[in-house]
Amino acid sequence: MVFADRLAAAVKKTDSITCVGLDPRKSQLPKCLQDSVTDNAPSQWASAYQKFCCDIIDVVKDLVPCVKPQAAFFEALGPDGMVALGKVIRYAEQSGLLVITDGKRNDIGSTATAYADAYLGTQSPWGSDSLTVSPYLGRDSLEPFAEMCDEREAGIFVLVKTSNPGGGLFQDRQTNGQTLYRSVAALVHELNESRIGESGYGPVGAVVGATYPEQLAELRQAMPTSWILIPGFGAQGGAAEDVLIGLDENGLGAVVNNSRNLIFAHAREQYRDRFNDSQWQDAVAEATKEMNAQLKR
Amino acid sequence: MVFADRLAAAVKKTDSITCVGLDPRKSQLPKCLQDSVTDNAPSQWASAYQKFCCDIIDVVKDLVPCVKPQAAFFEALGPDGMVALGKVIRYAEQSGLLVITDGKRNDIGSTATAYADAYLGTQSPWGSDSLTVSPYLGRDSLEPFAEMCDEREAGIFVLVKTSNPGGGLFQDRQTNGQTLYRSVAALVHELNESRIGESGYGPVGAVVGATYPEQLAELRQAMPTSWILIPGFGAQGGAAEDVLIGLDENGLGAVVNNSRNLIFAHAREQYRDRFNDSQWQDAVAEATKEMNAQLKR
Repeated sequence: MVFADRLAAAVKKTDSITCVGLDPRKSQLPKCLQDSVTDNAPSQWASAYQKFCCDIIDVVKDLVPCVKPQAAFFEALGPDGMVALGKVIRYAEQSGLLVITDGKRNDIGSTATAYADAYLGTQSPWGSDSLTVSPYLGRDSLEPFAEMCDEREAGIFVLVKTSNPGGGLFQDRQTNGQTLYRSVAALVHELNESRIGESGYGPVGAVVGATYPEQLAELRQAMPTSWILIPGFGAQGGAAEDVLIGLDENGLGAVVNNSRNLIFAHAREQYRDRFNDSQWQDAVAEATKEMNAQLKR
Repeated sequence: MVFADRLAAAVKKTDSITCVGLDPRKSQLPKCLQDSVTDNAPSQWASAYQKFCCDIIDVVKDLVPCVKPQAAFFEALGPDGMVALGKVIRYAEQSGLLVITDGKRNDIGSTATAYADAYLGTQSPWGSDSLTVSPYLGRDSLEPFAEMCDEREAGIFVLVKTSNPGGGLFQDRQTNGQTLYRSVAALVHELNESRIGESGYGPVGAVVGATYPEQLAELRQAMPTSWILIPGFGAQGGAAEDVLIGLDENGLGAVVNNSRNLIFAHAREQYRDRFNDSQWQDAVAEATKEMNAQLKR
């Protein structure tokens, strides 16, 4: 089944549009995992990151359709971290979750093909279903990804309007009355048009931040066949009413990522008293259920 | 010594502005290295890539100031490939070469910091001197890199005007008479201004393709304190006269990358007759010397 349809099926099955962001950070890991690192070696931290992410996967696998490992945090540990990333992706796939690898990769022509070959499709050496991709290099840098999506029944999410405060510096620049992000959205839509699956969606999705709800509404209209990955919910300030505009009338078409507020829930004020450090997984499950409920309002 | 000054010193010492791009591709490796892969496993290809790149480093280390490993080709082999990439970077550093890791990475805020932490500085777990970075996410995504450059005496090369045919789709868009690439250049220049080293250059460099010589001339003026990494020479069509405009009056300020025409020189028509497969390293050395000579005209 093509990626867009698998994502639709997973959203329906779990009755959830939550994407759990796997962003391990040394200083925020539960104390029991921090304590497992005895000599500060990257290989030990990589093991701790792997255990942390796999333990999260164990408690969210029936609650959400997908997880999004953030490559940067694994790469920060060097090659050991990348080995751990590969194991986390495999574990998530084996657990029945769809995996969006957040790498914001891209390059020109045949090098873009190498990235697509790397990260797209469960037969790739990483085994992820989809990848986030940067658009700065233009159409000929996105086409190799779209073609690999066809071949591997995979997906991509192109950066359109990012959630950070400074994202507008270039993305909001207007040319003949059209913003750059809107031009990127037009290309995303065009690349998707000939690739629509049974769910009504295609493999070329978009990243649009929850922190810009007006633009999210505009972009939902501009890319009616694209899955939208919405970061910026929770810790970055996006609220439930800000993201629900990203959905279609059937409650499909968008997944909402949350990283810190879910995976480090054990440290949040409202959970600290109810869960001790060794119960950190229970806090993750509770926070995930709470987010699911918020997004159903 | 800060990165910009180390690069200036390396250019002077080698009397070369050539950057050797390390872009290993399965089908183009010398036959003796292809034959070393007996079961098509990623781990075996990773070993072949590592040997290929280290053997290149052996013959170019006194001929050029820097090498640029392309992360995508290593990532295409999965975690095994990333382990090989780490070893290639270390080997190049130990051989006295500066290393520009070509990853075109970036993300928002604290995630950008994770990428900077990962790839910048010889004390990072990868150990590279510098990294290529994508600008789509704006100023607050580039600042963490610039700050890490200060801390680690490292460098970055921000994508400004890329060498691919379709690069202009977004990069050439004009807003109030100014192209997007020129606005990115203005930000690069601004981030660099307070960070100038003794060589007159700072750590925030730019990528400008050899395939757009007019824009290279424009951008050399717009970013007078930025090292420019110029891809697109050779196989992509850029000629010597197209790239020399990127230099300042002292012959500094730019390095010119060439990948395929150097590392796969053994397969080029003019070398095939002179070097047999087992002499592929000699072909790399010869092609590198020839490029050095072309760029001195």
